[in-house]
Amino acid sequence: MRHFLTLKDFTKEEILEIITLAEQIKTETKRKEFVPYLENQTLAMIFEKSSTRTRVSFEVGIYQLGGIGLFLSKNDLQLGRGEPMKDTARVVSRMCDMVMIRTFEQAKLEEFAAYSKVPVINGLTNEYHPVQLMADYLTMREFGKAENPVVAYVGDGNNMAHSWLMLVSKLGFTLRIATPKGYEPAKNVVEDALRFAKESGAKIEFTNDPKEAVANADVVTTDTWISMGQEDEKEKRLKDFQGYMVDKQMMALAKPDAIFLHCLPAYRGYEVSEEIFEAHAEEIFTEAENRLHAQKGVMVWLDRKRRG
Amino acid sequence: MRHFLTLKDFTKEEILEIITLAEQIKTETKRKEFVPYLENQTLAMIFEKSSTRTRVSFEVGIYQLGGIGLFLSKNDLQLGRGEPMKDTARVVSRMCDMVMIRTFEQAKLEEFAAYSKVPVINGLTNEYHPVQLMADYLTMREFGKAENPVVAYVGDGNNMAHSWLMLVSKLGFTLRIATPKGYEPAKNVVEDALRFAKESGAKIEFTNDPKEAVANADVVTTDTWISMGQEDEKEKRLKDFQGYMVDKQMMALAKPDAIFLHCLPAYRGYEVSEEIFEAHAEEIFTEAENRLHAQKGVMVWLDRKRRG
Amino acid sequence: MRHFLTLKDFTKEEILEIITLAEQIKTETKRKEFVPYLENQTLAMIFEKSSTRTRVSFEVGIYQLGGIGLFLSKNDLQLGRGEPMKDTARVVSRMCDMVMIRTFEQAKLEEFAAYSKVPVINGLTNEYHPVQLMADYLTMREFGKAENPVVAYVGDGNNMAHSWLMLVSKLGFTLRIATPKGYEPAKNVVEDALRFAKESGAKIEFTNDPKEAVANADVVTTDTWISMGQEDEKEKRLKDFQGYMVDKQMMALAKPDAIFLHCLPAYRGYEVSEEIFEAHAEEIFTEAENRLHAQKGVMVWLDRKRRG
Repeated sequence: MRHFLTLKDFTKEEILEIITLAEQIKTETKRKEFVPYLENQTLAMIFEKSSTRTRVSFEVGIYQLGGIGLFLSKNDLQLGRGEPMKDTARVVSRMCDMVMIRTFEQAKLEEFAAYSKVPVINGLTNEYHPVQLMADYLTMREFGKAENPVVAYVGDGNNMAHSWLMLVSKLGFTLRIATPKGYEPAKNVVEDALRFAKESGAKIEFTNDPKEAVANADVVTTDTWISMGQEDEKEKRLKDFQGYMVDKQMMALAKPDAIFLHCLPAYRGYEVSEEIFEAHAEEIFTEAENRLHAQKGVMVWLDRKRRG
Repeated sequence: MRHFLTLKDFTKEEILEIITLAEQIKTETKRKEFVPYLENQTLAMIFEKSSTRTRVSFEVGIYQLGGIGLFLSKNDLQLGRGEPMKDTARVVSRMCDMVMIRTFEQAKLEEFAAYSKVPVINGLTNEYHPVQLMADYLTMREFGKAENPVVAYVGDGNNMAHSWLMLVSKLGFTLRIATPKGYEPAKNVVEDALRFAKESGAKIEFTNDPKEAVANADVVTTDTWISMGQEDEKEKRLKDFQGYMVDKQMMALAKPDAIFLHCLPAYRGYEVSEEIFEAHAEEIFTEAENRLHAQKGVMVWLDRKRRG
Repeated sequence: MRHFLTLKDFTKEEILEIITLAEQIKTETKRKEFVPYLENQTLAMIFEKSSTRTRVSFEVGIYQLGGIGLFLSKNDLQLGRGEPMKDTARVVSRMCDMVMIRTFEQAKLEEFAAYSKVPVINGLTNEYHPVQLMADYLTMREFGKAENPVVAYVGDGNNMAHSWLMLVSKLGFTLRIATPKGYEPAKNVVEDALRFAKESGAKIEFTNDPKEAVANADVVTTDTWISMGQEDEKEKRLKDFQGYMVDKQMMALAKPDAIFLHCLPAYRGYEVSEEIFEAHAEEIFTEAENRLHAQKGVMVWLDRKRRG
């Protein structure tokens, strides 16, 4: 049985299969055709961190596929009382047909998956955010940026940077990651990406100069400098990330028709200027909406694999 | 596209249209006929304050109309992390078909509506509670109190007083509002109401004597003296509201067949006596149930307007 | 109208009727036949304590029966603001078709039921956990332990001990309860059980020696020594429960094919050893899954009784 824990586990062909499925279902949804691909199925949605997009997109998504989502927050579960992940996995996967988890360590997610009888989806961990990348890639296709694009990621070498490394190294595009010194992506993720890039022909570059990364890019993207749980490092981070805001001057270096993506929430005046955010709002909110469609592709694909 | 933010925005004819729809759907519901007026639609329910009636009535309501509700509390959303309302509005309204919001400032609700692609419903703000008034008016009709009734509102000049001002001034009834000095309804709301009253023929009277308000009334109503967030003013308020409890003596001044309404939760021994509350329980809990039916009317009406 | 508040209120025949219904619906569910026994019905699920199994099993259960569940936690309701249970009961039962409550005092549950217009189900109180026992008995039947079994309950004389007393005294089996001194089941529950046992032929024995209880048992079961709210007594309890852990040595005293049940969450190294827990994981997680099926039986049975 397949899970969706990180793009590392997927081939280029599989990623394209899922995206094609997502595009098809999006077309149907826009026509108000709600095909019950997952009729009567239940999706457990376990949140150890709060969320807007992940929550709404999964809950609406499973509903429009003919099933229903159960929103299980940390406060509502016994997880807080110290029940081991492996017990929760065995209980929940006996009652539900699929599970989505937003948690901290990727290892916790993997332990859950190891004990689960049903497919498990990563809804964000400290290490990866693969459903976001499926939405981002779907958005790139819709905005005509999927033919060997140059992607510039400017900011923190966090789970979003890791996920871009996985997507691009699998699909064979060009990715330039600009981070301040000390904020580079994790070494093991970089090593994996470089290995996949060899196979796919992807070009992966690292720099500490955001302008170099953005030069002539087709897609510019960033993420918050202060992720959930890093609030106490705020002052230091703001200093270290000086010069990394995607503003008018920086976007001017990219191709004239470059798109700007942001997984949200966005902090104006930090990683992106209000002006650039609003100028690219159509892309950004299409990207947000595409969480819904991309995740439907993921869920239906996992269900088909399970059925064999 | 129409929203449902305050009755100020609605004509008498529109209010009557919605109520007629609510009555029709209530009749169908009582016959266990669940007509899928909003088939496959999703209602985002955003709560910045806790709630029993609003939560249950909207979630059951959208379900019985063929759709589903998403309960999004402050703790579960990223709203708390400072995401601007306009971003949340653009994300949520790309994924859901309708939005209900319970929040503090009416201005926040209005900002959400301005950025929303789908109809937005006021589920309670500091200024207004229009869905409650639709339920109240539906209850008045069912108890035979809709032909030029005299309504007495006794207590705090808060969002419930404001909402009664809007309903009565639009429909042309008589409203007497009795508040202690310093607790009068907001000036701008009163001005709006007096303007609407001129057109509709409504009679709006203000007094600091609850007995004067209740004399010969057809409908007596009140609300808590201490709304959510005012707990620290409790002692002062209890003193200022002395003599405002709706008890046996006060109700005896109203018409013998007068009904008593309360939007709940009720605090016995404060704004209403246990005796009067329980004597009028049938009206009060019919009023609570009518939240369900009235809101179905609102949702179906908004959907029809959107479709044009 | 019947409620499901404690097994005390049920005859042996009624318990068997519910279990037979649960078995039938489980068979249908396993074949992916989702018969809409409770079509369009809404189940209010009120939680004053957090939960994993109760939450997931009821929410999936009502959905697979054709209805929907509303998860109402303490934080989301106005209960916290001091609304009397009788008002909440009258409001919720006017909008929903059935209510499940997890709360503290059994008396609160009973007050709710007294004011409810619809059937009420006990989802755990300080005194009883009857839906768990229905799942446990269903599991015993599936593992061939339902013909006059000897059941050994080892540990705290809490709501699980009480519930075993009710089940066994009604069905006429043998129950041996071993608790440390001072942790015996409540006197009134014991008296009720002994009275029911006279009628059914059940054998009920109490001891302070866990080995005596487990000797030749068909079913061994326990529960946490430190229930929610007892965290401050932890040190004292750990001392008092020394020798009560169900470990390899203790299980060796039971019949060779004895099963081990646990309502979860389990605390390894306290009431059960990791070794015994994992050796009996199939029974334990079937028991957890059976919450889903047993509760479907309860809900459909209550609905049929209501319809008469």
